[in-house]
Amino acid sequence: MKKEEKKNSKLKIIPLGGLEQIGMNITAFEYEDSIIVVDCGLAFPEDDMYGVDLVIPDVTYLKDNIDKVKGFFITHGHEDHIGAIPYVLREVNVPIYATKLTNAIIEHKLEEHDMLKKVKRKVVKYGQHINLGCFRVEFIRTNHSIQDAAALAIYSPAGIIVHTGDFKVDYTPVFGDAIDLQRFGEIGKKGVLALLCDSTNAERPGFTNSEKSVGKTLDNIFAEHKNTRIIIATFASNVDRVQQIINSADRYGRKVAIEGRSMVNIISIASELGYLSLPDNILIDVDQLKNYPDEKTVIITTGSQGESMAALSRMASGVHKKVTIKPNDTIVFSSHPIPGNEKSVTGVINDLMRKGADVIFEDVHVSGHACKEDIKLIYSLVNPKYSIPVHGEYKHLIAQAKIAEELGYDKDHIKILSSGDVLEINENGAEVTNHVQVGNIMVDGLGVGDVGNIVLRDRQRLAEDGIIVVVMTLENGSGQVLAGPDIVSRGFVYVRNSESLMDEAKTVLDNTMEYCMDHNITDWGKIKNEVKDALGDFVWKETKRRPMIMPIIMEV
Amino acid sequence: MKKEEKKNSKLKIIPLGGLEQIGMNITAFEYEDSIIVVDCGLAFPEDDMYGVDLVIPDVTYLKDNIDKVKGFFITHGHEDHIGAIPYVLREVNVPIYATKLTNAIIEHKLEEHDMLKKVKRKVVKYGQHINLGCFRVEFIRTNHSIQDAAALAIYSPAGIIVHTGDFKVDYTPVFGDAIDLQRFGEIGKKGVLALLCDSTNAERPGFTNSEKSVGKTLDNIFAEHKNTRIIIATFASNVDRVQQIINSADRYGRKVAIEGRSMVNIISIASELGYLSLPDNILIDVDQLKNYPDEKTVIITTGSQGESMAALSRMASGVHKKVTIKPNDTIVFSSHPIPGNEKSVTGVINDLMRKGADVIFEDVHVSGHACKEDIKLIYSLVNPKYSIPVHGEYKHLIAQAKIAEELGYDKDHIKILSSGDVLEINENGAEVTNHVQVGNIMVDGLGVGDVGNIVLRDRQRLAEDGIIVVVMTLENGSGQVLAGPDIVSRGFVYVRNSESLMDEAKTVLDNTMEYCMDHNITDWGKIKNEVKDALGDFVWKETKRRPMIMPIIMEV
Repeated sequence: MKKEEKKNSKLKIIPLGGLEQIGMNITAFEYEDSIIVVDCGLAFPEDDMYGVDLVIPDVTYLKDNIDKVKGFFITHGHEDHIGAIPYVLREVNVPIYATKLTNAIIEHKLEEHDMLKKVKRKVVKYGQHINLGCFRVEFIRTNHSIQDAAALAIYSPAGIIVHTGDFKVDYTPVFGDAIDLQRFGEIGKKGVLALLCDSTNAERPGFTNSEKSVGKTLDNIFAEHKNTRIIIATFASNVDRVQQIINSADRYGRKVAIEGRSMVNIISIASELGYLSLPDNILIDVDQLKNYPDEKTVIITTGSQGESMAALSRMASGVHKKVTIKPNDTIVFSSHPIPGNEKSVTGVINDLMRKGADVIFEDVHVSGHACKEDIKLIYSLVNPKYSIPVHGEYKHLIAQAKIAEELGYDKDHIKILSSGDVLEINENGAEVTNHVQVGNIMVDGLGVGDVGNIVLRDRQRLAEDGIIVVVMTLENGSGQVLAGPDIVSRGFVYVRNSESLMDEAKTVLDNTMEYCMDHNITDWGKIKNEVKDALGDFVWKETKRRPMIMPIIMEV
Repeated sequence: MKKEEKKNSKLKIIPLGGLEQIGMNITAFEYEDSIIVVDCGLAFPEDDMYGVDLVIPDVTYLKDNIDKVKGFFITHGHEDHIGAIPYVLREVNVPIYATKLTNAIIEHKLEEHDMLKKVKRKVVKYGQHINLGCFRVEFIRTNHSIQDAAALAIYSPAGIIVHTGDFKVDYTPVFGDAIDLQRFGEIGKKGVLALLCDSTNAERPGFTNSEKSVGKTLDNIFAEHKNTRIIIATFASNVDRVQQIINSADRYGRKVAIEGRSMVNIISIASELGYLSLPDNILIDVDQLKNYPDEKTVIITTGSQGESMAALSRMASGVHKKVTIKPNDTIVFSSHPIPGNEKSVTGVINDLMRKGADVIFEDVHVSGHACKEDIKLIYSLVNPKYSIPVHGEYKHLIAQAKIAEELGYDKDHIKILSSGDVLEINENGAEVTNHVQVGNIMVDGLGVGDVGNIVLRDRQRLAEDGIIVVVMTLENGSGQVLAGPDIVSRGFVYVRNSESLMDEAKTVLDNTMEYCMDHNITDWGKIKNEVKDALGDFVWKETKRRPMIMPIIMEV
């Protein structure tokens, strides 16, 4: 009887982030008294989020239902899937389940936040099943641009859900085995209620190339540039790429130096755990480079996205302490710009070329995400009743929805969700029944959530036209002006060239205060408004700018 | 004898902008007592130029040599070639020579700046020669993404220079004739000293497609979307594109509404001058759209670059006053994102899709710039002694240099210049002998040049972490604190959530002032430094942020 009831209950799928922007992937699965969460990622700030370092999800829903939450399942070790862990786990402290390398990267992150002892972790193997509350979760081997990536089969009383995580189909991976397509098929045969599938490359036709194809390209580059130093920028977390660079270096008798903090970290974690195989004595310290002829060295570096503080950007702008770009260098971007980074990447390329380097920046990369035909393959194996596109911008979700339509899915069996949507689903149907609180929590320095919309709007205005501060001291009681009004500005105009403008502004203020006196305006709020209006109008008329105007009144 | 001397003099080629960034094209050609200038463009601000509207070149060199300057020759009507005219011509007021449409666009711009009566203009026809000082300048017909584009043959006593402007080779242009390849060949036969050739697409293999090929694509889109409204975004200045959209609309029996100020302007200029041929009654006002069934209308709009204030972006975000996106709309981007705009374009696409529209954003565009094989064609016809790549980022200049090398040019016959370089050139050689003052003049509102590096740096800092203003009133003579120190912040933290932080900061300040009193520190500069240091350290320790700290002292 009880089992009967359970069967009639619905599973709730609640994305708590990740659908309005790239990153911040976190999805809750709730069945009666159990909640499990898949991934816990951060997002990088949008251009107008001035001064914000990173963005994490608002997990109020998890906090409000803390008694139900059983654990986090992490699909792989990229920031958009693990980056919010040190923040979220402070408030929702439940165990984390992940594969070995993913777990090691999480541990490194927790350690940096002094959280290692506070969070329970469990390393899971592919094929292993974890029972938590009403759920059983199985880790399935996939391929991606980081090792140890997993898809999840989530067995719930309402049916089986398959969540691919970020994935690609690589029949010839550099490390480990190919994606476990057999298991996808086997689970598909059991009958899958819904598939949550990676949409990132859903607009791209065909199949994604194997990581190994980059190895051949790298070999060709090494063969064609035997007489120059080679510097290769790539993603720190792409250990397979680093492995292939090291393999090429080994074949061509070069030593390898690693530059960039995140690159050094990941390589040390990966080689410690056996995910990277290093020929004897191939690694040298950057300081040792000078002991080898240029044509016998390779530098692997961070900065492939043009990040201004990364090692390659510092080399390009000539401020790197240990590496100086030479006219003979061959510099390779083994990467593709992430949307939004195109311009900064090009800027670094231009700077490197200005120093005379030969820069190769196209076609030394493959994507870590499944293209159209790969996505169709997964749908064919899993054959879910419902399609729930995830991971990607809205247009990518739509592209996957179109693929599902091509495969014969009715529109009402394709569910494009927004963050916060509560999708209630079982064999009898699927519909969004509710919407829970979600949102961006901005992290700036040590502050989590203390930069909100008001602070951001102020920063935007300050950035646009600067600030004018007006100060004056009034006499207690009489309200007479004892000192000021004085004007100080920042980010508005270069004052030495604008003395007459500032003199006139002072006159405007004097007149305003006289007006206030004459009209017995003594309320500070009213005086401040008069000052703002008069000075704002004057400045707009003279400059067509709208700096923030901040009147401050003191009283003695 | 005098002629002999002249022949031995060298021609100076001085790019005054455009080589360190995209846009701001302006190049001076100087021979003895004559200077002519080719183009006078603006650049759009880089991301870190907060609040800056546009950037114009520093033309100190022209001002210092004003007696020599004979005129401006404008190759075509794009902003990066004409946008600085209203600013530069205020100070360097010489005649402007341009083809008919280019001249009309310049006149419209001058009118907006109330400068029309102050600047002499002369309309030039293709094939016409203008004698100015030592120079003779011939306008040669080219093709580009705007009509009436011209290359220039500059006849100087030191030899002939060919400047392509921005160009493509279009054998089947929508309006007018194909590029005058015969004339390029004829001039080449005479012997050309140097070719300044467009590099924008020098990285792209093959040939650039004809503008007409887009017409076919548009026809297909109209054929496939007979039952929906069609909204097409493109560049306002691409009148040929607008013509082709109107042709398709006409063929499919649709009325056309134009939306976006710059689009309306250009279309009115172009149709007045006969560059656009409008079937009777095809244009309707946006207000009239409601009188026609959706499937009988097309809207041509600005905003193809995701510009936040443009018509399409306002439609996408649901704030456009007259056009509401409907789930059934077909929206076409007949454009390609300009580098740096990728993310905002994608943002608009996502927003449009969220409203249910079908968005087509790939392959409804061709470039206006010559690809590799087109560039080789021009080199073969002109056969210059020296190659001077222009127009494009540094990597594009390098790409053209590589093309020239492929064509057999020695490296010392390829001159990659920086803005300000003075290239002295004649039959006997070419070398950079000097460097003149150049730079970015920032325009913000009405201010030209009053935003400099100090103001920008302040805006960047304000944007990053906001500002804390500390005010206090001291007693004249005693230096005793009569009021304050008080703290007001903007863009730092949301104060209501940070009361204890602000209270502690106030304590820090009280202690600092006490310290100053105790140590007889009365110099205002020193007091301000103490305040900055103490508060800065405290804030950094507590928040890891570095807001601008501005102490203000008043005295009564």
